[in-house]
Amino acid sequence: MSTALRPLALTMGDAAGIGPEIIAKAFREAPQDMQGCFVVGDVGLMRRACRWVCPPCALPLPVVQLEAVADLPAVPPACVPVLQTEARAPEIVPGRIQAEAGRLAGQWVQWAARAALRGEIAALVTAPLHKEALAAAGAPWDAYPGHTELLQAEAARHLGVPVQQLPVRMMLANDELRTVLVSIHLPLRQAIEAVTHAQVLQTLRIADQSLFRMLGRRPRMAVAGLNPHAGEGGRMGREEIDIIAPAIAQAASEGIDASGPYAPDTVFMRARARPGQPAAFDVVVAMYHDQGLIPIKYLGVETGVNVTLGLPLVRTSPDHGTAFDIAGRGTADAGSLIRAVRLARQLSRPSA
Amino acid sequence: MSTALRPLALTMGDAAGIGPEIIAKAFREAPQDMQGCFVVGDVGLMRRACRWVCPPCALPLPVVQLEAVADLPAVPPACVPVLQTEARAPEIVPGRIQAEAGRLAGQWVQWAARAALRGEIAALVTAPLHKEALAAAGAPWDAYPGHTELLQAEAARHLGVPVQQLPVRMMLANDELRTVLVSIHLPLRQAIEAVTHAQVLQTLRIADQSLFRMLGRRPRMAVAGLNPHAGEGGRMGREEIDIIAPAIAQAASEGIDASGPYAPDTVFMRARARPGQPAAFDVVVAMYHDQGLIPIKYLGVETGVNVTLGLPLVRTSPDHGTAFDIAGRGTADAGSLIRAVRLARQLSRPSA
Repeated sequence: MSTALRPLALTMGDAAGIGPEIIAKAFREAPQDMQGCFVVGDVGLMRRACRWVCPPCALPLPVVQLEAVADLPAVPPACVPVLQTEARAPEIVPGRIQAEAGRLAGQWVQWAARAALRGEIAALVTAPLHKEALAAAGAPWDAYPGHTELLQAEAARHLGVPVQQLPVRMMLANDELRTVLVSIHLPLRQAIEAVTHAQVLQTLRIADQSLFRMLGRRPRMAVAGLNPHAGEGGRMGREEIDIIAPAIAQAASEGIDASGPYAPDTVFMRARARPGQPAAFDVVVAMYHDQGLIPIKYLGVETGVNVTLGLPLVRTSPDHGTAFDIAGRGTADAGSLIRAVRLARQLSRPSA
Repeated sequence: MSTALRPLALTMGDAAGIGPEIIAKAFREAPQDMQGCFVVGDVGLMRRACRWVCPPCALPLPVVQLEAVADLPAVPPACVPVLQTEARAPEIVPGRIQAEAGRLAGQWVQWAARAALRGEIAALVTAPLHKEALAAAGAPWDAYPGHTELLQAEAARHLGVPVQQLPVRMMLANDELRTVLVSIHLPLRQAIEAVTHAQVLQTLRIADQSLFRMLGRRPRMAVAGLNPHAGEGGRMGREEIDIIAPAIAQAASEGIDASGPYAPDTVFMRARARPGQPAAFDVVVAMYHDQGLIPIKYLGVETGVNVTLGLPLVRTSPDHGTAFDIAGRGTADAGSLIRAVRLARQLSRPSA
C-alpha cells in the first residue's frame, strides 16, 4: 500500500457548525484529495450534511459506516466513510451552542489523537470546535480552550511527561506563504512580554524541526522584528537588539538556518512564493498573532491552513471557525479544509 | 485649461538616492500620467538621471529648464520640465550620505510646500529624502525627521498657528486597499499607549474629511481592533471596549460612517477591492504601523502610495526610501511614484 494512502482522520468538529458540511463538500468537490480519508463522527449527522451540500437534481453522497479503520480500503469510491466512535448523536440544531455537540466534538478529537499517537492513522484534520460548547460539556472538556490544549494533554499522557514539556507553536500556511507564531491568543500587551529569548529560540527550534520533515531539507527561516522597521537600530524599540537577534544567533549556532530580524512590513512579501517567483524564505517567524495572520488571511480565509507544530502527531485544520451564522445552509467554503488535508498528507510523509 | 492639468510638482528628493531616476523613468514610461507635472530640482542632476534610465539605442529624454511654473504649458511633450529653484547643484555621488544632497532635498520640498499652500500648484509628489543627509545639512533641516514634519511646519507658518494644531495622519493606498494609521514610527509598546480615545477619534475625523474630498462622498470606514480577534469581548484585551468602541461611537454621533472594531486579521481582506468584487469598506483605520503596512506591502512595495492627511495641501509620495544600494544604476522601479502622481491628481480635484 502506498504511504500516500495511510488512513487520515477528519474529525467532524462541533456538529452545530459548518464542520459536517465542509467535510461533505470536500468529498464531493475533491474526491482525489479525500482518498484514504475517513470521518470520525456521526453517521446520521454526516448524512444530513451530505443532503445540505447536494446540488439540485443530484443525489447526496452515500455515507458508509466503517466498523474499523482497517476496513477503509474496502469502501467504494464516491462514498463518505464514517467511523462511529460514540453512540448515535441526538438531533443537533445548526447554529446553537449545545453541550452535547461540544462533548461529541471533544470525544472525536480525543479518539483521533490517540489513534495518531499509536500510529494507526497518518494524521488528523480537525473541523472547527466551538469553545463555549466545549465548556458547556463539562469535565474534562471544559479544561480545554481548544484543540491545541486537548492534543497537548493527550500527547503528554501518551509520552508520560508533563504538558509543560510539550511546547507547541501554531503555523499558518497557504499556497504562497507560511508563518509560525511566537504566541497566539494573548492581548497585544502580553504578546510583547511573551517575546523572550527562550520563546523565540523555542519557536525557531520547533519550526526548524517540523519544516525539515515537511520539506525534506532544512527550512530557510526569516524572523520578523517586533517594532516598525525592526526597531531601526534601536531608535524604534530595543527588543530586536536585546532579545530577537541573540535568539537568532543561538539558533544559528545550532545549525538552524534563521536570519533577521527583518522589518515586519516587508518580510512577508519577501517570503511570498508566486508562480515563476520563488520566495526568499520557506517560512516567516512572526512575533504575535496579527503580524502573521494579517498577511496569511489577506488573500482570503478559504486558502489558509492551521498546523500545530511540536507534537508527536500531525494535525492540520482549516483556518476558520464554526461559522454558526451560516451553518446548515450548505454554503460554506470547503477550500481551507481541502488544503488542510493536502498539507496533512505532506507533513505525514515519511522523512527523506 | 482643464483642472486635470493644474501644475503638479515632483520634488527630486535626495539626489544620492533613486529619486531623480524614478522621476526620469516615470516621464519615460508614463507620459500620459506626467502631463502637467514638473520637477522641483536640479537640471544637471536630472539630465544625469535621464541618461541612467535610457534604454540602449535610445536617446535620453530632453530636460527643459522652466523659468517659471507658468511656462509649463509651453514645454513640448516628451520632455522633463525642471524648475531650478536653487543654484546649480555640485556633483552628488549616488549612494552616499551628503550634507549638500540633504540640504537641496529640504529646499526643494520647502519651495513646493509654499507653492502648494499659496495655491500655485495642485499638489506635491515627493521623492524620498534621506533622514541622515537631512540631519547632516544642519539647521533648519536637522529639526525635521522627515517630510511630514517639514510640511507640518510650513503649513503652520502659512496659517499662523502652532504646529500642534495641525495633526496629521499617514494614509497608505494601493489599487485595492487604503489604510490610515493612528500612529506611525513608534516602538510597538509606545504605539499601544498612543491608542487613546483622542487619537483614534482624531484619526477618524481626519480620514473622513480627506477621503470625502477624494471620493466625493462620505467614506465607509472600518476600524481595526488592537488585540487578536478585536479582544473577543474583553477576553483578549480591553482596549476595544474601553477606548476604540467609544471613539467610534463618538465619531458616528458626528455623522462619520465608521464601524468596528473588527478583528485585525480579517478586516483588511474585507476592505480589499478586486475586479468584480467591491470592497466592504473604503478604508481601514489601523491602530499601529505594521498592522496597516503589512497588508499594503504584501502585494509588492512598487504598488503602494503614501499620503499625508490633515494638512491644507495635497502631498503623496512613493512608499519606499532612497534605496542608496541601487541608486545610479537606473534599475529602480517607478511604479510607486507613478501611482503617487495619479493619487495626487485624484486628491487635488476640486470637491464635488
